[in-house]
Amino acid sequence: MKTVKIGLLGLGNIGTGTYKTLELNRDEIESTLKAKVDIVRILERDVDRDRGIHVPPEKFTSDPDSIFTDPDIDIVIELLGGIEPATSFMLSAMENGKHVVTANKAAVAANYPRIMETAEKNGVMFKYEASVGGGIPILTSIDGPLRANKFHEVLGILNGTTNYIMTMMTKEGLDYNTALKEAQAKGFAEADPTADVEGIDAANKLSILMALMFDQYVHPEDIPTTGISAITKEDIESARADSCVIKLIAKASKNDDGSLNYEVRPMRLKESHPLASINMEFNAVFVEGNAVGELMFYGKGAGPLPTGSAVMGDVMEIVRRVL
Amino acid sequence: MKTVKIGLLGLGNIGTGTYKTLELNRDEIESTLKAKVDIVRILERDVDRDRGIHVPPEKFTSDPDSIFTDPDIDIVIELLGGIEPATSFMLSAMENGKHVVTANKAAVAANYPRIMETAEKNGVMFKYEASVGGGIPILTSIDGPLRANKFHEVLGILNGTTNYIMTMMTKEGLDYNTALKEAQAKGFAEADPTADVEGIDAANKLSILMALMFDQYVHPEDIPTTGISAITKEDIESARADSCVIKLIAKASKNDDGSLNYEVRPMRLKESHPLASINMEFNAVFVEGNAVGELMFYGKGAGPLPTGSAVMGDVMEIVRRVL
Repeated sequence: MKTVKIGLLGLGNIGTGTYKTLELNRDEIESTLKAKVDIVRILERDVDRDRGIHVPPEKFTSDPDSIFTDPDIDIVIELLGGIEPATSFMLSAMENGKHVVTANKAAVAANYPRIMETAEKNGVMFKYEASVGGGIPILTSIDGPLRANKFHEVLGILNGTTNYIMTMMTKEGLDYNTALKEAQAKGFAEADPTADVEGIDAANKLSILMALMFDQYVHPEDIPTTGISAITKEDIESARADSCVIKLIAKASKNDDGSLNYEVRPMRLKESHPLASINMEFNAVFVEGNAVGELMFYGKGAGPLPTGSAVMGDVMEIVRRVL
Repeated sequence: MKTVKIGLLGLGNIGTGTYKTLELNRDEIESTLKAKVDIVRILERDVDRDRGIHVPPEKFTSDPDSIFTDPDIDIVIELLGGIEPATSFMLSAMENGKHVVTANKAAVAANYPRIMETAEKNGVMFKYEASVGGGIPILTSIDGPLRANKFHEVLGILNGTTNYIMTMMTKEGLDYNTALKEAQAKGFAEADPTADVEGIDAANKLSILMALMFDQYVHPEDIPTTGISAITKEDIESARADSCVIKLIAKASKNDDGSLNYEVRPMRLKESHPLASINMEFNAVFVEGNAVGELMFYGKGAGPLPTGSAVMGDVMEIVRRVL
């Protein structure tokens, strides 16, 4: 049996979740692939942190080039987060003939055209299912079994942190600051919640969805974006009086002339809308295609294991397709 | 530009929907594939029926072998329905080196192992996304981006006819026979509704899902199956008194020893369950994996265009992978 060798960039929450997914399901993964899968080197400075997994210390390195230039490594998984140095690292890996898998929506959204060109020029696969909707297989579905459609519209609850806060405000009557503190206490919001609560994370994901669905790249900073930090209890009550709930929605639609409308902002949804009942930290994506009609995907849009599931699914797809 | 040549078996409702999907989105499909797509021959006796599409009469044939033995044909799409002659035709096509796409759950479920062996032995692709959940990309998701999971459970509303009838009984207070007649009048139920209302169609789909999710083949006739024809208004009222709705559910789960439990029958679901709000002719599939957690897919589980969307998605995948 051959061994697929992987270099992993980053062993934070998502890196650890990916490592755990592989350990948890190694038997099934390797028997499906008819290959062994080995994470041979990990770019991470924090060797000693207790992650609840056993990682042989000799796998750690602080030298990214030792991964990119290792002829034995087939696939590089990038889970550093942030635009740089993640983007440069992914480009270097591809220029060295490595296939790349990432969960990094900020880097993919900011540099989509350049990343895709680099993958094509170097004849490698670039996979990023985990970057939108965490464990929800939305990108593969759009690019695969739904590809025979013209898409009209996408509507998504793409950020679990803000959906958790909006759910707490709606169901428990909390005000924004109390709900945010509760989300932070439960690990659903970071100490600096700006990227989530101001809609930046959702805008990154919408940019990626639009590139794939409509073949038009819009930089996330060019997407009109309003977060949830100004939503009051009164807004929620006034929506409820109209049988509506307020959700942070990322929305894009295509006009007849081919141009796109797009925005991220808190929107009122009728309580009967399929997205209105998506609560807590769950994500959902609602798409409409001209042949398939309405479709909705629902699941865990974040978290180490759901995201690790999508990362390892991409790794398996690369092995089955080209290794 | 090369031309991908297709032989189509059957130009009934689904065949016509597939033909329409290709005509509707031909520009996008061909530019994505960088290839022309041509349905060159159609096995169908009824040449004159008005289908709302223009099909040049010289494409029709009544000789299936003229399709299987034509060296120019790359892909055979089987949309005849029923177990035979559909199964024999698919096997013949694969033995002649053709890739095969089908929406035929009865044939796939009855002969899954033999069909898969024949595809592997002949080095061709066999794709059947449309056979479960119509336009919902459930099979590709399970076999692709979710492949790194061990699956615990699947719960599906897999038959639009029965879900329409159950919705009418629940929301409008109709009795079974009146709801069935309304479904027939609206085209959601056939003149002989047995395969739908007795759960046979859902059992076929569950057999296919189990083979893919759990790698265990169970013949659909070995799945304990109860349909909805004995459900009364009193059953619905009694469920409602317990905050439940009744749905025809196809369910399978894996025990710790690896054995499976499976059944198709009307089940009570709490009104808060994600599947409880799936109404009318819509389908939904709820799966749980050990890394990804809970996922739900929702969409149109039947109908010419949604099913045609999945069939053409499979065709595109074959072209992108191997042609």
